[in-house]
Amino acid sequence: MSRSDVVARLFAALGDRVDVDPGELDAARADKSGQAAAGTPLAIVHAASVEDVQETLRIASATGTPVVTRGAGTGLAGGANAGSGEIVLSVRQMDRILEVRPDDLLAVVEPGILNADLSRALAPHGLWWAPDPASREIATVGGNIATGAGGLLCAKYGVVRDAVLGVDLVLADGRLLRLGHRSVKGVTGLDLTSLVIGSEGTLGVVVGATLKLRRLIPGEARTLAATFPSVRAAAEGATAVTAAGLQPAIMELMDATSLAAVHALLQLPAPEPGLAQLTVQTDGPAASAEAEAIADVLRAGGGTVRLAEDDAEAELLWRIRRSMHPAIETLGTTLIEDVSVPRSALPAMFDEIARIEREFDLVIPTVCHAGDGNLHPNFVYDAAAGADARDGVPDVIWAAAAELFHAALRLGGTLTGEHGVGVLKRRWLVDELGEDQWELQRQIARVFDPAGIMNPGKVFTR
Amino acid sequence: MSRSDVVARLFAALGDRVDVDPGELDAARADKSGQAAAGTPLAIVHAASVEDVQETLRIASATGTPVVTRGAGTGLAGGANAGSGEIVLSVRQMDRILEVRPDDLLAVVEPGILNADLSRALAPHGLWWAPDPASREIATVGGNIATGAGGLLCAKYGVVRDAVLGVDLVLADGRLLRLGHRSVKGVTGLDLTSLVIGSEGTLGVVVGATLKLRRLIPGEARTLAATFPSVRAAAEGATAVTAAGLQPAIMELMDATSLAAVHALLQLPAPEPGLAQLTVQTDGPAASAEAEAIADVLRAGGGTVRLAEDDAEAELLWRIRRSMHPAIETLGTTLIEDVSVPRSALPAMFDEIARIEREFDLVIPTVCHAGDGNLHPNFVYDAAAGADARDGVPDVIWAAAAELFHAALRLGGTLTGEHGVGVLKRRWLVDELGEDQWELQRQIARVFDPAGIMNPGKVFTR
Repeated sequence: MSRSDVVARLFAALGDRVDVDPGELDAARADKSGQAAAGTPLAIVHAASVEDVQETLRIASATGTPVVTRGAGTGLAGGANAGSGEIVLSVRQMDRILEVRPDDLLAVVEPGILNADLSRALAPHGLWWAPDPASREIATVGGNIATGAGGLLCAKYGVVRDAVLGVDLVLADGRLLRLGHRSVKGVTGLDLTSLVIGSEGTLGVVVGATLKLRRLIPGEARTLAATFPSVRAAAEGATAVTAAGLQPAIMELMDATSLAAVHALLQLPAPEPGLAQLTVQTDGPAASAEAEAIADVLRAGGGTVRLAEDDAEAELLWRIRRSMHPAIETLGTTLIEDVSVPRSALPAMFDEIARIEREFDLVIPTVCHAGDGNLHPNFVYDAAAGADARDGVPDVIWAAAAELFHAALRLGGTLTGEHGVGVLKRRWLVDELGEDQWELQRQIARVFDPAGIMNPGKVFTR
Repeated sequence: MSRSDVVARLFAALGDRVDVDPGELDAARADKSGQAAAGTPLAIVHAASVEDVQETLRIASATGTPVVTRGAGTGLAGGANAGSGEIVLSVRQMDRILEVRPDDLLAVVEPGILNADLSRALAPHGLWWAPDPASREIATVGGNIATGAGGLLCAKYGVVRDAVLGVDLVLADGRLLRLGHRSVKGVTGLDLTSLVIGSEGTLGVVVGATLKLRRLIPGEARTLAATFPSVRAAAEGATAVTAAGLQPAIMELMDATSLAAVHALLQLPAPEPGLAQLTVQTDGPAASAEAEAIADVLRAGGGTVRLAEDDAEAELLWRIRRSMHPAIETLGTTLIEDVSVPRSALPAMFDEIARIEREFDLVIPTVCHAGDGNLHPNFVYDAAAGADARDGVPDVIWAAAAELFHAALRLGGTLTGEHGVGVLKRRWLVDELGEDQWELQRQIARVFDPAGIMNPGKVFTR
């Protein structure tokens, strides 16, 4: 069937939900990774209902047309980038909250709702959904589920997988499955809910989710910052906090290059050369006592600690952390990486990053969710240097990134803590999984999608 | 190949690890459900290493012989019962702790270690593994993982799925896969670790696990008991506690029949007729304040509350709860059920149990993990009445249990909160999953085990 026939069938079935505006189609080629798919997708379906999703997938299956599911397009691995000959299935407009149950500590939502909108709707009930990606103002819950997103609060409050009871999934052939449960416990059959979380659009389309909520944390949060003469010392400080049995809500590390770039962007006094910073938040009724205890550990590790005395001072500290990405962008084009290691391996991982910087003559400013061991090294390069590369990333950057991935694996870590595999890490997936597991995972995906039309070329393509 | 040839190959490869003692073979037919498989298994392999497991599975695959993996045999759904023509693969002797990392809050263990032995080994490090089945003194961690076990602490501290970072799995053909990760975060590919948790021996053999640990909770726990004039009032009290935003560590409900049976067994004064009891534990630094707040909620709901004033009084209250099973056994033979419902549906679920008691003229003493909505209705019957039934359970009991399952599903609940499907609930699995999901799950199991030799007849057999 020709491409125009597919589009005609979509229009006939879904009318004004179908969008072929060239600007919109072009936007759907890319996400926030800086990567874009080759070619232009056929059409975007702005689904407004489960039935719209089912109808789109029935047409896709009947015509053998690939489907790329998309939320807000804030991904960082190219997992929702749509290219030539593909249908973009946007669930961004499916953004309703269908149910909030304070007595059962759950909410039922559609996938297109933004994290921050959900938080604002839950707060009057005294509730929140713990997953808290840094992109919460612009990212969707469905995207969080598709990538298995993390964020800043994961060591204390868990990742997405810990906060989803069930998902409704439309299969490639249009059938709707209701996976999981509404009860706290449930072990009927295989846990397909967990299998869907982090599956990056390869198993089906998440059209609804039953979320496990928490009560809002009582008490005032406390914030502190600790500066260290080197990033290794800061990493050792973070490791010492966990080893001491203390559990901050948030513990973020910025290396010297990141910190200097942010200070320059915000027109703050330049930090001393080499200075790295840990920013820590404690919460709950014992927030102050925990902040003091953490300060003691960090001082013992050579840190210069300052507890924020008021909200304005705390807010400035978090503004410095949140300004990391815009600040890095002033340095050049960036490949944002996402390795994660056991917390005790953080200092060694920073040694590896320093080695890779030296060996490849690169600057790799790194921010790190130090409470959980998830690092975001930013490979900065001149866009002109990647102009000839198929994906715009110079070979030397990929060679250095490969070194980073293998270093993380040697330290007992993983390629990706929270961004997913998408197109950017598919080459290295087998290095972590091994050939046998890689093939088994691919076969499982085929059980859901025998024709291979769900997000082809992502994750399980070498 | 004949059965004796299979046994000969096992002896040739595994020597004195192979056990054909008739008493041992007979014991492997049954678990704690009271059910036993038909016929007698071929042999038991007492694996002492991953290699022993691999060798056993290679022989099983080569000869097309079914394998039933077994830990301590404390299951309650018949999931590890082995019958005619089957190899029993016991991992009970693989009980070492390979690694404890307080700085990374993880432990690596073999599957045969008992929960309680693990707890005792972790305590000197100031650590614990939260899954806490009532059977912790006799159940293995591998069995917890195979069934997706729960316990008393799940509402506050999570289920097994929340506390496992990775598993090592030997496939039916003997290949070893390392699933999951050691870091807090990790989203590389599909989450096969979660898929294995609760898969009841159908996907492979768990030969190792990386467990996510917690710091021991500081402070003294507090215990209170509240009696109510009816089980419905007690259930409403429990529901009100959660709805009020309070989070006990443990909240257990005993109905009037259970409570009276325990009092009789322990030679305590008989409770007033109809009296039901909630027993609640709070922990952490705010344990006393939380206990007082919970007491207020329960009093407002008509409960008569008593806070234990010392350890001896608290211990008596927990002894009453723990004596439930021996007490029920004095009433007759029992089918222990395991439905779970959203917490707000607890009162309605007790109404359904009362209706089923009336309609089927049965006594169904029920204990309930009221903090999380998981009920264990005990169907009591005269063993002689089931003597003619294939599984020893009278038809009327199964008819009543089916009513119970369907009532739980209507209330948004599940067939099994923590015991698993095994053989006892396989008939009803499709009622919860639906035909499409049932078939999909069966196909996924076939990806792991194409020949269908892993625990056949369990879970995915109607």
